[in-house]
Amino acid sequence: MKVLVVGANGQIGKHLVSFIQDSDRLEAKAMIRKQEQASFFENVGAETVVVDLEDDIETIAGAAEGVDTIVFTAGSGPHTGKDKTIMIDLDGAVKTIEAAKVAGVKRFVMISSFDTRRQAIQDAPPSFAPYVAAKHYADEWLKRTDLDYTIIHPGGLTNDKGTGKVKVASELDRGQIPREDVARVIFASLENESTIGKEFQVVTGTTSVEEAVSSI
Amino acid sequence: MKVLVVGANGQIGKHLVSFIQDSDRLEAKAMIRKQEQASFFENVGAETVVVDLEDDIETIAGAAEGVDTIVFTAGSGPHTGKDKTIMIDLDGAVKTIEAAKVAGVKRFVMISSFDTRRQAIQDAPPSFAPYVAAKHYADEWLKRTDLDYTIIHPGGLTNDKGTGKVKVASELDRGQIPREDVARVIFASLENESTIGKEFQVVTGTTSVEEAVSSI
Repeated sequence: MKVLVVGANGQIGKHLVSFIQDSDRLEAKAMIRKQEQASFFENVGAETVVVDLEDDIETIAGAAEGVDTIVFTAGSGPHTGKDKTIMIDLDGAVKTIEAAKVAGVKRFVMISSFDTRRQAIQDAPPSFAPYVAAKHYADEWLKRTDLDYTIIHPGGLTNDKGTGKVKVASELDRGQIPREDVARVIFASLENESTIGKEFQVVTGTTSVEEAVSSI
Repeated sequence: MKVLVVGANGQIGKHLVSFIQDSDRLEAKAMIRKQEQASFFENVGAETVVVDLEDDIETIAGAAEGVDTIVFTAGSGPHTGKDKTIMIDLDGAVKTIEAAKVAGVKRFVMISSFDTRRQAIQDAPPSFAPYVAAKHYADEWLKRTDLDYTIIHPGGLTNDKGTGKVKVASELDRGQIPREDVARVIFASLENESTIGKEFQVVTGTTSVEEAVSSI
């Protein structure tokens, strides 16, 4: 199974590509924005493709040609200009979803924000609300397709070393999670068809990633 | 028929409320952001309600209580901060659409941008693209409801005095139109059920507004 990782050059993306390349059944294709970012992926034996999320649907669909699954883990992040929030976190995500349809890719794993429900937009501090709104509309768009989607809502991201232990549920108390463990959860979701059509929150916990994800 | 005008204090909104109050069959309720904006509307005999588009759906639904139609002509405009683009032009519009459902209002007239199709986002200059994207997603959200919608896509807005003469079609060459004439087109759309379930572009032309709108 070939997996296009959109946003591969982010920290979650790099961990994910490494996990995929270490596995037997999966192989990664890293979608990156600049050719200079390719060496990390070449070193782990992954194919790369240079496409910008501000490119059009057809260009993104070209990158998705021949893959079985798309993982969207790109993000302008909550602290970029709000123009990028709408152009990358919302429109870039929607274009990738539409590109999946064009390329005939059925499986789509979205890395979302911890809580993207309507009330979370309302409750967010003004500087953060546009990001939550962008993620909300991207998630809504995905849920209204007939793709085999999984939407992962990680808690506050840290750069700590992963523990491999998490807690997952449709609704959790806010918590943190290392990016490395988010990548493990994505990897486990790719291996686990019971996550299709589901969305869940995930934070650090006491259950192994594999067991937690199988329970969904 | 009572019409809630969202964004009443804008120039299109003020013209529209005046046209409605001058008519026999319609009456306007002006949704405004600040109590200080009320006097214009009181002078033309229109009811006012003070609600901010950053308020929640229930609050907006409260403003829509007892009305038959909602006209959304609010806008942060293309030159505000991009946080307002997503929070007002997209999320404020979607909340108003959801508020219509909550309040049982079936008819919804959206004032959009001239071209909000996918390709227009791609073709827009970078500083304008987030606004086009916000309007695109708001329009898409509306089209996916079962509300009796009309989406009006006016050309470049001017403050010139209206001519009462326009050209309408699903696709036109880019042109301009006075805000006063946009208000006339909205008013005619309210009077004309053939506009339900339709969207059209409009610029200054040679046909009377009433005749042009009836032809849709």
